[in-house]
Amino acid sequence: MTIVGELINTSRAAVKEAVLNKDEAYIRELASKQAKSGATYIDVNCGNMINIEEETMKWLVNIVQDEVDIPLCIDSPDAEVLDVGLSLCKNGRPMINSISDEDERYAAVLPLIKKYNAKVVVLCMDSTGMPNTSEDRMKVVRNLHAKLSKEGIADEDMYFDPLVKPVSSVATAGAEVLNTVKKIKEDFPDVHFMCGLSNISYGLPNRSILNRLFVVQTMTVGMDGYVLDPTNTKMMAGIIASTATLGMDSYCGKYIKAHRKGLLN
Amino acid sequence: MTIVGELINTSRAAVKEAVLNKDEAYIRELASKQAKSGATYIDVNCGNMINIEEETMKWLVNIVQDEVDIPLCIDSPDAEVLDVGLSLCKNGRPMINSISDEDERYAAVLPLIKKYNAKVVVLCMDSTGMPNTSEDRMKVVRNLHAKLSKEGIADEDMYFDPLVKPVSSVATAGAEVLNTVKKIKEDFPDVHFMCGLSNISYGLPNRSILNRLFVVQTMTVGMDGYVLDPTNTKMMAGIIASTATLGMDSYCGKYIKAHRKGLLN
Repeated sequence: MTIVGELINTSRAAVKEAVLNKDEAYIRELASKQAKSGATYIDVNCGNMINIEEETMKWLVNIVQDEVDIPLCIDSPDAEVLDVGLSLCKNGRPMINSISDEDERYAAVLPLIKKYNAKVVVLCMDSTGMPNTSEDRMKVVRNLHAKLSKEGIADEDMYFDPLVKPVSSVATAGAEVLNTVKKIKEDFPDVHFMCGLSNISYGLPNRSILNRLFVVQTMTVGMDGYVLDPTNTKMMAGIIASTATLGMDSYCGKYIKAHRKGLLN
Repeated sequence: MTIVGELINTSRAAVKEAVLNKDEAYIRELASKQAKSGATYIDVNCGNMINIEEETMKWLVNIVQDEVDIPLCIDSPDAEVLDVGLSLCKNGRPMINSISDEDERYAAVLPLIKKYNAKVVVLCMDSTGMPNTSEDRMKVVRNLHAKLSKEGIADEDMYFDPLVKPVSSVATAGAEVLNTVKKIKEDFPDVHFMCGLSNISYGLPNRSILNRLFVVQTMTVGMDGYVLDPTNTKMMAGIIASTATLGMDSYCGKYIKAHRKGLLN
């Protein structure tokens, strides 16, 4: 299971403030807490720091890597900022968040995957936008998989993100994501997945229960990567318990360990 | 979704005591609470009332039917007791819990399905015992489906129970159930399912989280019936939220209604 810790993102007010105040301790604490809580990558995103995104990325990457040993997921709408962030990565192979089949994005990000031997989040969208049905998503997936394979990118380094839409606006939004995951697994058994969660519950009350259960549903069909807040203990408890009942935790060892640490209450 | 309320079972000490004390009010309250909480059937089981099972079944069935309008699920190891219970059922078509492919059980229960035009829980087991793998379960399913169909039992009246075993003893126990449901749905798209839950977590700590999440996992692959305690609000909240994200709750109407009633907290 790949857990990309999402907390170091300047769209969160407290993180933006920490950046502006050069509050290194706050960033260290966020990185450390996420790693201790089970993150396998730390996402770094400062895309809303207009004019200072590049220097902010440098500052954040250096602090995070000084604090934790796990690899980083470099996250930016700007390929130049990705390049700067990736150039500093030294905790194992980094992940790029993200490439898509939008022409400009594809052309800008592809060279970075190769230059840094990076793993990459592959969004199921192209220049025509975000598809609604699993069949339309699969057209994009097949196209991107073919193009990336031709460039020598290994299946295991592609993390397909089916792009979750709110179930409040289209009732089948969740079901289409589940169908997409099943189809991707059938056609490309060696690729991985990545999924943000909060969109599923957008516009509805008690969002946390929907987000938590959507993790369980997507895991059931084979999703193996999430961008989330690993310090959300209820969410992580759901992932740990699901892993046990799906038969991916031999002798329920991780489950029992989590119980002993009091993480399942 | 079929929810069989499991609380009226004399293996629960308080129910046995109520039976022995002829505490009608207690039984009424249990029936009423389950129906209000979302049960679509009330299970009645007094299989451990040795020597007085038959009269107890009569007493319970009459009280429950006087209290609620939903149909009953008559549950006994003894076909004669099933017969007595079924003969009193008047709240719509009853359900029988259960038939299997064990020779004696099959021969005794089949006539009752026909006599009472009942729906029936079909256990995926035969005289050789409970199968471990989904493939072995499917052999039993195919055999039972062929035999019951030949007797004129409609697919929609069969509720297959894949039989859940503890994931603590065999890591793949949950995964095999999920695979069985998927295979049954592929081969027999019109049949229904029934599933008890507590076995999955047997021998493990924090059992309730495993039971709750196993409902979500089984729903994701198409399970549509459970024997459970419908007054367990966390369990029911999980089912309601899952129904929404699986696209089976149009405009999330039931979800929003449950939220307004405070059932999702």
